[in-house]
Amino acid sequence: MTIQAIVFDAYGTLFDVYSIRELGEKLFPGAGQALAELWRDKQIEYTHLRSMSSMYKPFWEITQDALIFSCKKLGLRLNLDAQSALMGQYARLQAFPENLSVLQELSTRGFKLAVLSNGNPQMLQSAVDAANMQGIFTHLLSVDLVKKFKTAPEAYQMAPDTFGLPAKNILFVSSNCWDACCASWFGYTTFWVNRHAAPLEELGVRPHGEGRSLVDVLEFVDSKRNT
Amino acid sequence: MTIQAIVFDAYGTLFDVYSIRELGEKLFPGAGQALAELWRDKQIEYTHLRSMSSMYKPFWEITQDALIFSCKKLGLRLNLDAQSALMGQYARLQAFPENLSVLQELSTRGFKLAVLSNGNPQMLQSAVDAANMQGIFTHLLSVDLVKKFKTAPEAYQMAPDTFGLPAKNILFVSSNCWDACCASWFGYTTFWVNRHAAPLEELGVRPHGEGRSLVDVLEFVDSKRNT
Repeated sequence: MTIQAIVFDAYGTLFDVYSIRELGEKLFPGAGQALAELWRDKQIEYTHLRSMSSMYKPFWEITQDALIFSCKKLGLRLNLDAQSALMGQYARLQAFPENLSVLQELSTRGFKLAVLSNGNPQMLQSAVDAANMQGIFTHLLSVDLVKKFKTAPEAYQMAPDTFGLPAKNILFVSSNCWDACCASWFGYTTFWVNRHAAPLEELGVRPHGEGRSLVDVLEFVDSKRNT
Repeated sequence: MTIQAIVFDAYGTLFDVYSIRELGEKLFPGAGQALAELWRDKQIEYTHLRSMSSMYKPFWEITQDALIFSCKKLGLRLNLDAQSALMGQYARLQAFPENLSVLQELSTRGFKLAVLSNGNPQMLQSAVDAANMQGIFTHLLSVDLVKKFKTAPEAYQMAPDTFGLPAKNILFVSSNCWDACCASWFGYTTFWVNRHAAPLEELGVRPHGEGRSLVDVLEFVDSKRNT
């Protein structure tokens, strides 16, 4: 099998959302961890519900909706200052430290690189700029184009369409196990960046490769070249 | 607006899943609450992922998958005895104490009553039998028929098709806010049995009515009759 292009999920995979937890803890002492977890869970839940009900709205707005709900649920008083500060973090997330050099190495080896994310174009551009990743990716593919969030097939279909390649010749890389698993179902070759040593989701499907950081993608790609 | 039929969600709405938490606590002291919450969240997440990826499998199996994942995630050793005991609870959940009399009263008033649930037919029949609700419902509508879980429109469409009524003339009752909200999007008149005084989901839509127990459905139906 020949991998010709590599597509990356954005949030959690390229961009570290840890700073959200830190700021949450600063704003709501003792509740930062709970807020970060519930916020993330609600954000993804709302993408599912809106995709299934065909009620798309941009990820930026969903992220804000999820923040507002999470604070209500946890009994945290979210004033506009705190809301703006937390949302602002999403626009300037840091990349994981190993990412830039891994992406440059993959680019040097001749792979076409793209992002495929739930994030709307403005969010993605902002994050890529903040991480000094301009020029690395040939495409920033946002589900905003198809108005369905991952894991809808319409979302995953964007990369094969963009590159003119079968999904199995594209490596899909995500730190979200559900994303990597459903991308496997879709037909991609997949790699799970399991940064927190989480158990595999019980979906009856598994990513083709697994590692602890983006560095491990290099070895996986090598192994695929030799088979 | 005239309500002619009333459709009920099953798990959490008609049947009390509290016993799951109790048994979880007995099997895994100190972790019952965490297990019950994660198990439920994963169960619903897997219905979303499988619906979006068109990888349907029966709710019973998904419930078991979610249990296995949740125990791994929480570091709980789930042997087959514990697994069977926890799954067995799902087959014989108790109904909330007020439910049977409310359902009988609604039936007496001439409403057609049905269940519309993610549960597969065998699970639903087992729960209805255990709750002595035989003969109350004209239909036990399982998403197993359409192979998409709620909140897919194919799932919600079953009740209008069954009753030959527009969705707005059917009252959809759920204790899950997301379910009531998405049913509102679909077109039903909706009632949220908000048993735990949870905040409204931030989906930009709200159920038409809200109460603390199934008893409050009676008043809501009365109010609709008078408008």
